[in-house]
Amino acid sequence: MTARRPTIGVFDSGVGGLTVLKALLELIPDADYVYFGDTARLPYGSKSVETVARYAVEAAHFLEAHSAGLLVIACNTATALALDRITAATRVPIIGVIEPGAAAAAAVSGNRRIVVVGTEATVSSHAYLRALEAQGLEAREKACPLLVPLVEEGWIDHPVTEQVARIYLDEAFADGFREADVLLLGCTHYPLLKPLLHRIVPPQVKIVDSAKSTARAVASELQKLPLRASAVHERRALPRLKFFATDSVEKFRRLGERFLGHPINDVEHVDLKE
Amino acid sequence: MTARRPTIGVFDSGVGGLTVLKALLELIPDADYVYFGDTARLPYGSKSVETVARYAVEAAHFLEAHSAGLLVIACNTATALALDRITAATRVPIIGVIEPGAAAAAAVSGNRRIVVVGTEATVSSHAYLRALEAQGLEAREKACPLLVPLVEEGWIDHPVTEQVARIYLDEAFADGFREADVLLLGCTHYPLLKPLLHRIVPPQVKIVDSAKSTARAVASELQKLPLRASAVHERRALPRLKFFATDSVEKFRRLGERFLGHPINDVEHVDLKE
Repeated sequence: MTARRPTIGVFDSGVGGLTVLKALLELIPDADYVYFGDTARLPYGSKSVETVARYAVEAAHFLEAHSAGLLVIACNTATALALDRITAATRVPIIGVIEPGAAAAAAVSGNRRIVVVGTEATVSSHAYLRALEAQGLEAREKACPLLVPLVEEGWIDHPVTEQVARIYLDEAFADGFREADVLLLGCTHYPLLKPLLHRIVPPQVKIVDSAKSTARAVASELQKLPLRASAVHERRALPRLKFFATDSVEKFRRLGERFLGHPINDVEHVDLKE
Repeated sequence: MTARRPTIGVFDSGVGGLTVLKALLELIPDADYVYFGDTARLPYGSKSVETVARYAVEAAHFLEAHSAGLLVIACNTATALALDRITAATRVPIIGVIEPGAAAAAAVSGNRRIVVVGTEATVSSHAYLRALEAQGLEAREKACPLLVPLVEEGWIDHPVTEQVARIYLDEAFADGFREADVLLLGCTHYPLLKPLLHRIVPPQVKIVDSAKSTARAVASELQKLPLRASAVHERRALPRLKFFATDSVEKFRRLGERFLGHPINDVEHVDLKE
């Protein structure tokens, strides 16, 4: 049997999914990664289920064609709106971010009452509500459409961002959810706002994102795959990383480094022809 | 000769171009209109010249195929980045918003010193700077990437929007441009912010957008076209309006009415296959 490391495909509408890739690299360094960011058509969070599903299936096919043996949908909106359609359209195992995120929230909540923030499309789909209720939690979902543009503007720790986040969170942590003890970040852009959010959530609140729990779900799925068994034969110090973006590679590199936490090389531009 | 009214194609990445359509309807009611909003791929303002040019040429072809005898590029980013490529790719006259916007600014400026605000892509292209310098004006361009998301969130008259606009405009109206006497709105979303912007610009500043001057440029171009000559034979009380959007028609209708100022019917969904 030829020694072969698994290749994991990671997909997001843009650079936010790099927060998930970061967690994957920490937990599973003995794999190779292909990342696809659909930056020419982002954001997905304000768009309809039909459009998001069409884009996401194209992205999944692209990653399958680039040897991915497992796909991580590192985009909350694509997971919320299109996980079933992506799964039906591909032949490899698919891991989304919503189930792992809900599990992470359930693991740390004491009073089983949590607030989820995400894009307009993610919240409208109620995918988190269903996943959290299945875990026995009560959840309130709150759309925060301005947080992604604020992060992309680089206003990570800016008074305006704090004011906007306060407006959204004051509405969310109200009435029956005043005592909620978890804030689940249902968008891969939001982990960059953690320090700011910590300052403004009520004191009992823990902030959870789905990056680490998604990485754990991937590790567990890999154990089941035949490709994993042979991976140990070819251990290298560093994983191979390959990035594709549908818009400017320069912008992907520049913005992306903020999310991944280290330099990004080897980004290739790609057009998805429909 | 068969009596025939002109059909004018109007294109924007989303609903912002409806502010231009509104001005067209007021000035040229004896025409029919086909509007195309590329809502599945918006925004253009954060994307590269290659991507924007490819999308804009597809949109222009779509409108040509829908009988448009003249095309209005009612999107500052598409005009700034791709007017030449659209003109080269089509057979009908093309009017963008930048030349008319620059002419409108020149007409009202006393001290020939103006500030232009727009998207990141529009500002990076320096298309306004060139157009304004050609009119003998000195200009400072300032990218305001958060204003579009704030308008789309509906925060038209919100303290956060005022704070963000103040940050951008304080930087723009500084140093050599402290005395500038025109603020040119180089994005079709911004006219909705006029009341708010009037409160925060220095007192000598007039606010100009390109909607009306673009409509005048279209009227003047129509005089040159043979189709215009026959238009008088078929005067109707109301122009025919047909809208196409690449994402949800429901959302287009809902958001669009804010920009057009009256109800929108007859929106059809369309996929642009590349």
